[in-house]
Amino acid sequence: MPKYTRFPKVDLPDRRWPDNEIIAPPIWCSVDLRDGNQALANPMGVAQKLRYFQLLVDLGFKEIEVGFPAASEIEFEFVRTLIDRQLIPDDVSIQVLTQAREHLIKRTFESFRGARNVILHLYNSTSTLQRKITFDMSREEIKGIAVRGAQIVRDQIATVPETTVRLQYSPESFSDTELDFAKEVCDAVAEVWQPTVQNPVIFNLPATVEWATPNVHADQIEWMSRNLNNREAIILSVHTHNDRGTGVAATELALMAGAQRVEGTLFGNGERTGNLDIVTVALNMFSQGIDPGLDFSDIPSVRAQYEDLTGMEVHPRHPYGGDLVFTAFSGSHQDAIKKGMDRRADIQDPTAAWEVPYLLIDPRDIGRTYEAIIRINSQSGKGGVAYVMSREFGFDLPKTMHPEFGRMVNQATDRLGREATKQEIFDIFKQSYLELTVPLELIRLRSLTDEMGDHTITCTVKVAYDGQIIEITGRGNGPIDAFVHAMSERGWNGFSIIDFKEQAVGSGAGTEAAAYVQIQARDGGRFWGVGVDTDISIAGLKGVVSAYNRSRLA
Amino acid sequence: MPKYTRFPKVDLPDRRWPDNEIIAPPIWCSVDLRDGNQALANPMGVAQKLRYFQLLVDLGFKEIEVGFPAASEIEFEFVRTLIDRQLIPDDVSIQVLTQAREHLIKRTFESFRGARNVILHLYNSTSTLQRKITFDMSREEIKGIAVRGAQIVRDQIATVPETTVRLQYSPESFSDTELDFAKEVCDAVAEVWQPTVQNPVIFNLPATVEWATPNVHADQIEWMSRNLNNREAIILSVHTHNDRGTGVAATELALMAGAQRVEGTLFGNGERTGNLDIVTVALNMFSQGIDPGLDFSDIPSVRAQYEDLTGMEVHPRHPYGGDLVFTAFSGSHQDAIKKGMDRRADIQDPTAAWEVPYLLIDPRDIGRTYEAIIRINSQSGKGGVAYVMSREFGFDLPKTMHPEFGRMVNQATDRLGREATKQEIFDIFKQSYLELTVPLELIRLRSLTDEMGDHTITCTVKVAYDGQIIEITGRGNGPIDAFVHAMSERGWNGFSIIDFKEQAVGSGAGTEAAAYVQIQARDGGRFWGVGVDTDISIAGLKGVVSAYNRSRLA
Repeated sequence: MPKYTRFPKVDLPDRRWPDNEIIAPPIWCSVDLRDGNQALANPMGVAQKLRYFQLLVDLGFKEIEVGFPAASEIEFEFVRTLIDRQLIPDDVSIQVLTQAREHLIKRTFESFRGARNVILHLYNSTSTLQRKITFDMSREEIKGIAVRGAQIVRDQIATVPETTVRLQYSPESFSDTELDFAKEVCDAVAEVWQPTVQNPVIFNLPATVEWATPNVHADQIEWMSRNLNNREAIILSVHTHNDRGTGVAATELALMAGAQRVEGTLFGNGERTGNLDIVTVALNMFSQGIDPGLDFSDIPSVRAQYEDLTGMEVHPRHPYGGDLVFTAFSGSHQDAIKKGMDRRADIQDPTAAWEVPYLLIDPRDIGRTYEAIIRINSQSGKGGVAYVMSREFGFDLPKTMHPEFGRMVNQATDRLGREATKQEIFDIFKQSYLELTVPLELIRLRSLTDEMGDHTITCTVKVAYDGQIIEITGRGNGPIDAFVHAMSERGWNGFSIIDFKEQAVGSGAGTEAAAYVQIQARDGGRFWGVGVDTDISIAGLKGVVSAYNRSRLA
Repeated sequence: MPKYTRFPKVDLPDRRWPDNEIIAPPIWCSVDLRDGNQALANPMGVAQKLRYFQLLVDLGFKEIEVGFPAASEIEFEFVRTLIDRQLIPDDVSIQVLTQAREHLIKRTFESFRGARNVILHLYNSTSTLQRKITFDMSREEIKGIAVRGAQIVRDQIATVPETTVRLQYSPESFSDTELDFAKEVCDAVAEVWQPTVQNPVIFNLPATVEWATPNVHADQIEWMSRNLNNREAIILSVHTHNDRGTGVAATELALMAGAQRVEGTLFGNGERTGNLDIVTVALNMFSQGIDPGLDFSDIPSVRAQYEDLTGMEVHPRHPYGGDLVFTAFSGSHQDAIKKGMDRRADIQDPTAAWEVPYLLIDPRDIGRTYEAIIRINSQSGKGGVAYVMSREFGFDLPKTMHPEFGRMVNQATDRLGREATKQEIFDIFKQSYLELTVPLELIRLRSLTDEMGDHTITCTVKVAYDGQIIEITGRGNGPIDAFVHAMSERGWNGFSIIDFKEQAVGSGAGTEAAAYVQIQARDGGRFWGVGVDTDISIAGLKGVVSAYNRSRLA
């Protein structure tokens, strides 16, 4: 026999799940405090667990597995603290895990005495591999453990009359248990527990190790859903892991296949490659217009608490929560995103259909900003640069100016060999347009008068040319025209103004005017200049100076 | 219209992919140097790209997208460097990306002049969203861009007679392109390029943004595979992204649906949530006995080079490559893993079927060690602790000793509130067993003689009792028996030896003997003791002293 073999597929030619869709959220059960916690190099203490529990309650979880209280003093103490301090809302059930052994079951019942709603979660491992390697037991023996455990649980319920106990059984390592045996064991447990439609049992089918492609998992779940006895008295639950990197898919396809309940953790914390990431599955639903019933509207805060409490980090590319997942560096992506975002700004309706290329959802819907959507490196293009100038600094560069300035930034990032910060981009803008004083520098506007009252403006300006200070005067049909004539009289001519745009930058008392002036030199070369001033006329003159200086630099 | 809506499913009731299995690897194409690189805050320079290219070649990639040479000077220079320095093996094709615009296509052909094998990769965006938001163009106009691009490409081929040019076309944003339109555009491109079975075209269908569950993606691929004209002259390629966390699943199901080629990156680097992780898909195949044709036998080295060159980190829970993915902290997992590993050690055949619970594959097959498989914290159990003592320090504790020592370590980790290091575990072992000197300390073995020659041993030992040094002598049928009699004569009695085990620890000149001695006290209490010495007899006596002192401490 070779070392590795293909996982056998399920004989289910009339499977129905591929025609189904996810149209409503499942019951969510967090296993962060158990499966998640046990996978941390440094597990949480009671104080941290209390904070994590509160986070889960705040997010809207109604079923929260709080631990394996018979196995650890800390978990026992944690369960007692939750109950004794009355920290469990009335509509939240805590779930306690126990192996199918008498002393552990009894200790587990002790742990939750006084609680209002409890899910007693019984498990034993049923898989072929575990039967052979770990237990050296037959199918009958393994089933016997489950049935005896179920009987002890049933008999213990009378000892906690003040608690509503719901029952859950997991054939652990379901993912490599023969389906007929998994059904046999679950049916046998149901024989003991006698679930009804009003009081259903939860059968949780863990992919403890992810051995197969997610479609095989879906087939397994559909097979169970169609073959378990008394199906209507069962809540079918899935619990996927991520060994093959397909835990999210396995859960989603399982929901199409009949699963009604999902166990998982925030950001997929859990043993080895982790448990199912509930954040991703819930937000995937959200992205398709389904309210998941969990509140991830402030994902940065959820992430910060998660990282603080677990000591784990969320990867920059982790869906929804990662730093880079709403960020485009590539020029063509940026252009498309900019168009989508500009269009959205025009619509001015935050509830309008989300139609921004490359972005699955609106980052703001989960508490993220638009700030990081576009970041600039050597792969970026003019559209992205224009987006940053507009969004971060309020400068709406004219469209025909984008290639010119985009090229400047591109050369700079090539030189830098790394991402350019927003400030670096603005510095390039300042140095390239706003701070040019050679050969011409505008020192002061002396006067701007309409002496004749016929809209002929006389403009007198104090300037420096090659460092020499002089006053120049000219007339025209507007300040810029007059200034250009004044320049022309000194022989600083040889260009014509071909484009002009003004805008306000900032708001309130700090508002300034930006003027974008494009000139064409005699040899055909075109140059944009930019001037900024609180006085809109002066901004225009500065724009001319900027463009002129640039034409002389070239 | 609401902000988000359900992605429409594909009308394909007779889909076949759910009955298929992955039985052979696809053609792999790395897009690390393009899609991956463009997503880095700090893209790679030419020197780094050359190293990355060599890494990809070493791993066995035969198709490597090297960039978008018409869009960036660095990428142009990189392609030229590869060719001019003859760094491309004869059996490797470089792939160059270009938009469907004449000057970019021509510049792209210039970039690879002199190369032996090139895949010319033409693309334009075809999706509904991009047509509407980004281009404001009709289907006909978008198809026209593709066809004109294809014509220019076809006409340029004559300019590079020394190069074997294969052709690839991507309807970019295929994932939200209407299927009939995607087919229409691809068919139109094929009309221009006239592919044959001998000289097929590559149609790459990018899930540029992952909008839907992976089964919908598989339906899309199967639909295309069944409906494209002249299918046998086409290599169908997929290129998934991971916005919904299901990129690996989308690729795997697409392979069942007819895809023959996979584009992706190492560890899933790429824009936003990243591209397909080829490492995971390839090793998923490996885990099912399929040789993926890529060599990931030293994943730590691949990861180190990747992290160094990209500046990205591989998450601790990332499948196969992450630090924690072969690690179990939970006691029940550890027990099962220990049994599987012990059994494997007994078999002594590294090629035997892999049957270790909780571990998808043998970590050693990808260059990882067994060292981290079991780590110890408050969630861990006796089996894990015994595993560490055996594997790390060579002490094979007797099975009935596991609960006692496991408890000690458990109390320590509860106290520490964090993971215990291997050394800390060994320190607990030393302090609890090897370094006990109160009340009894063995100072020196004076003599051990079989005076009568009748196998009656006389044992004389110098000891300290409550700090007072004395010599004691006793007889018995072996050294331990004699020593116990010697103790008994001094009144240090009230116990009997009920279990004993010896083993060698270490090898060569450093070999020592470890003796495990279990005693039962008069009140029924049982205590293990451990002695270590280069002399096996003395190790046994020390074991008795250790057990005796422990019984007196209790």
